[in-house]
Amino acid sequence: MTDKRKPVFLVIGAGAGIGGHAAARFAAGGYHAVLARRSDEDGLARLVGEIDAAGGSASGTLLNAAEDGTIEELVERVERDIGPIEVALYNLGAQIGNRTLHDTPHRTFELGWRLGCYGVFRLAHAAFSAMVERGKGSLLVTSATSAVRGNAGQHSHAAAMGGRRMLCQTLNAEFGPQGIHVAHIVVDGAVDAPDTLGKLLGDKFEPFKAAKGEDGVIDPGALAETYWHLAQQPRNCWTHEVDARPWTDVAWWNDNPAPEINSAGKGFAGPGSK
Amino acid sequence: MTDKRKPVFLVIGAGAGIGGHAAARFAAGGYHAVLARRSDEDGLARLVGEIDAAGGSASGTLLNAAEDGTIEELVERVERDIGPIEVALYNLGAQIGNRTLHDTPHRTFELGWRLGCYGVFRLAHAAFSAMVERGKGSLLVTSATSAVRGNAGQHSHAAAMGGRRMLCQTLNAEFGPQGIHVAHIVVDGAVDAPDTLGKLLGDKFEPFKAAKGEDGVIDPGALAETYWHLAQQPRNCWTHEVDARPWTDVAWWNDNPAPEINSAGKGFAGPGSK
Amino acid sequence: MTDKRKPVFLVIGAGAGIGGHAAARFAAGGYHAVLARRSDEDGLARLVGEIDAAGGSASGTLLNAAEDGTIEELVERVERDIGPIEVALYNLGAQIGNRTLHDTPHRTFELGWRLGCYGVFRLAHAAFSAMVERGKGSLLVTSATSAVRGNAGQHSHAAAMGGRRMLCQTLNAEFGPQGIHVAHIVVDGAVDAPDTLGKLLGDKFEPFKAAKGEDGVIDPGALAETYWHLAQQPRNCWTHEVDARPWTDVAWWNDNPAPEINSAGKGFAGPGSK
Amino acid sequence: MTDKRKPVFLVIGAGAGIGGHAAARFAAGGYHAVLARRSDEDGLARLVGEIDAAGGSASGTLLNAAEDGTIEELVERVERDIGPIEVALYNLGAQIGNRTLHDTPHRTFELGWRLGCYGVFRLAHAAFSAMVERGKGSLLVTSATSAVRGNAGQHSHAAAMGGRRMLCQTLNAEFGPQGIHVAHIVVDGAVDAPDTLGKLLGDKFEPFKAAKGEDGVIDPGALAETYWHLAQQPRNCWTHEVDARPWTDVAWWNDNPAPEINSAGKGFAGPGSK
Repeated sequence: MTDKRKPVFLVIGAGAGIGGHAAARFAAGGYHAVLARRSDEDGLARLVGEIDAAGGSASGTLLNAAEDGTIEELVERVERDIGPIEVALYNLGAQIGNRTLHDTPHRTFELGWRLGCYGVFRLAHAAFSAMVERGKGSLLVTSATSAVRGNAGQHSHAAAMGGRRMLCQTLNAEFGPQGIHVAHIVVDGAVDAPDTLGKLLGDKFEPFKAAKGEDGVIDPGALAETYWHLAQQPRNCWTHEVDARPWTDVAWWNDNPAPEINSAGKGFAGPGSK
Repeated sequence: MTDKRKPVFLVIGAGAGIGGHAAARFAAGGYHAVLARRSDEDGLARLVGEIDAAGGSASGTLLNAAEDGTIEELVERVERDIGPIEVALYNLGAQIGNRTLHDTPHRTFELGWRLGCYGVFRLAHAAFSAMVERGKGSLLVTSATSAVRGNAGQHSHAAAMGGRRMLCQTLNAEFGPQGIHVAHIVVDGAVDAPDTLGKLLGDKFEPFKAAKGEDGVIDPGALAETYWHLAQQPRNCWTHEVDARPWTDVAWWNDNPAPEINSAGKGFAGPGSK
Repeated sequence: MTDKRKPVFLVIGAGAGIGGHAAARFAAGGYHAVLARRSDEDGLARLVGEIDAAGGSASGTLLNAAEDGTIEELVERVERDIGPIEVALYNLGAQIGNRTLHDTPHRTFELGWRLGCYGVFRLAHAAFSAMVERGKGSLLVTSATSAVRGNAGQHSHAAAMGGRRMLCQTLNAEFGPQGIHVAHIVVDGAVDAPDTLGKLLGDKFEPFKAAKGEDGVIDPGALAETYWHLAQQPRNCWTHEVDARPWTDVAWWNDNPAPEINSAGKGFAGPGSK
Repeated sequence: MTDKRKPVFLVIGAGAGIGGHAAARFAAGGYHAVLARRSDEDGLARLVGEIDAAGGSASGTLLNAAEDGTIEELVERVERDIGPIEVALYNLGAQIGNRTLHDTPHRTFELGWRLGCYGVFRLAHAAFSAMVERGKGSLLVTSATSAVRGNAGQHSHAAAMGGRRMLCQTLNAEFGPQGIHVAHIVVDGAVDAPDTLGKLLGDKFEPFKAAKGEDGVIDPGALAETYWHLAQQPRNCWTHEVDARPWTDVAWWNDNPAPEINSAGKGFAGPGSK
């Protein structure tokens, strides 16, 4: 159901993980949520239905974000037919697992950029003019550890996410003073997201989560609260970057558990003599 | 008034800015707030009184945090006489304005470290054992731009804050998996804090804020909402670092407004030829 | 003149600035330098001629790096006809000056990525297999301030350079242990490069340099010494990232000169009370 | 032997590792090297003797850098009796191995700061005035991984090194434009340093190095070449920060080898849906 009197929350990449939970959270907070995802019409209808059932307002659409013109058309359509987009969430990635350079085809690398970086640019291009006119708006961008460091095997993903992070900074620098809040969320841990990590791991998803222990995987509903908080910050106090991970996870800048030898070596790198 | 059935929020550095507003926010959320500050008993009583008047629970104490044993004694006393400290906020800094190296005495540099870095260590040392036993607790640490980059004139402040930031990372790495949430908040903008920035600027404080324009200075009450959000994150989704600044402020990693020449040069630094 | 007994230094982006000077430095050090650039056959011949005249070995080729297959063909040709590429320098950027988002066409953004990020991926893809077989090799990547922070107006450039930096880290992580040294050079200042910055600024280039004062612009010959040093580091002591700027330049993480008001505000952001 | 016509290279922390090799490198390059270390007069004499034997100029002194006035007195004595200090290297650390917070006494934490951070401030305070008068000079600061991230168990070390790094940035910002080159070297790997890492590991030092494999530990002589290069950069092209590690070492920002599960989780953290 579409309630035209509500501000719009638009999420591109609305699966059963972060995207869907963010939509539900903003709907609960009084927004009309527009959910866009590439495929699985049934899954999309289920998410919209759950929001409706909870008394919220939502609608859904399929979208091939990699194709030129699609994001642009969606933004125009939402602004025209539903209402002003007050908060947009770009929640698409292009994670393909660990691949060696040799096993990363040129096409894959390009698609990673298209979904991971170019899409953010296109969304901002399409949505910011109206936000600037209205003097307000928010762009939340889900991001990953690969935005801040490049691990082996992450050639495509890290190149895309690294570009995404720097792009978010340029957008913030230009549009912050025009009233648009750009926030880059570094999700530095596994998310309980059946449509992405779940599909990738397949049978191993449940054992993976079990091995992580109690509260060892990010609950997308918990993360959605942080998204909500960011979007509600008054403009005198805006966060541009925030990280999140489960309590048992090692932060990206730390060694994995028990690297005694290695960290001993690193630890002693600096000092010369006493 | 002290309500022993409430969880305790302890803030070290409780002036009329971030510290006082955080105390009020946590009191409103059901905590008993313990406010500690170095001086101004009247100001302290006023803050406690305002929380009481709003129906919250709070108590105050004077504390010279730079002196050995004081933080330790306070933590012990609160745990014994009031209740378990669930959230501690270290909100002391040692900003002394811009000073050349020549005008930064050795004693000043040491005091900066004592308040800016050593105090966090002492608080963690004093408070974490009990938190670990209880399997939960949070340490919020107010920090500044100087924790992430050292500007000219900030010798004492940046050295203290840089140490503070790395210390927060070590604490998080050791104690996160034991249930303690450590969060480092990079306040990258001026705060409407009469007891610190206000006293420093004196007569120039109001003109300074006016020059910043509408919503151009961080409202400590708004920032307190972010502190509250951090402390309420479930352990599957913890933030370690977050930044905040007013919409009109240039982020620390950006050039100040209108640096056309300089940024042109920088911009063109990389490419060799076409 | 091509001396097949020499190790090969290949530079993509060989203008009269960093690229040309690096070629000259490596030729002086005993390499055969292969210079590739997009246009200006005369300029290319001049650079090759100067190296020859100095007793070095060099050859040149025109190359449209943005076109698929070109870098790949060049690498194959050099390996086959000249000799093993021991050091490759990717020296192309896609700086287009400061442009608002509105004035950054989608095509421009894509071209920025193609030259700024995808080209590095393509070069690594093309050159690394042979290097791995030989158990050694170096990839030097000229980069810019935009790789570490995104300023207003740098949407295309920063997105490309941010991706470049993360890509260099993934390449280093996979190929370092296979004997390939990947180094990312953050050029954080204007370079005395007539073919890029010079062309961009036109008539304003000489006044710009004069305004910078004595030694106020990076001499590409000086920077070439750093490139040479990096390529000569033994594998027990490899640098992955290094920055460089003129002595009078403000580092990217610092405020521009004389930001008293702003930095005072920032300085005082952290502390709560004393 | 002291040759008063030579520029002076002063190293504080001159053991058989980085400090001693840097001294030898600068002596070979035409400097008179002054070696200062806390203890082991025989070891000191041996280092000085080796430089002498190689035709260089060097002298040595014992120094308790943690004690007030010592660095100051040394700088004054060298300037008066030997000659102008052109390059100073601060090569002291305060690594104490991995210790839990509980096992890190307050005194240890303070000593870490005294040697790791305060000493750099004191050296700059003592040496920079004369350098500014002469319009030139360099301060090289050996640093460690702990300066850029805080691992568990590194409370004292990371707090000291984090402060050191920010201090180096403030010094650079103030003194770069006055002709003083400040460089912060992030040694992100184990160094073949018998007087520090060797003493710490004792019997395990040789097995440790053997386990690291061929070229798996930084040769301090190789690193000294990088120090030399930094000190020779002309002022139009100064590096402020550089990292170094062995080819087989995982960079600090990367996961340790074979973290398949963990990195899969992290990798998939970001994207929401496809």
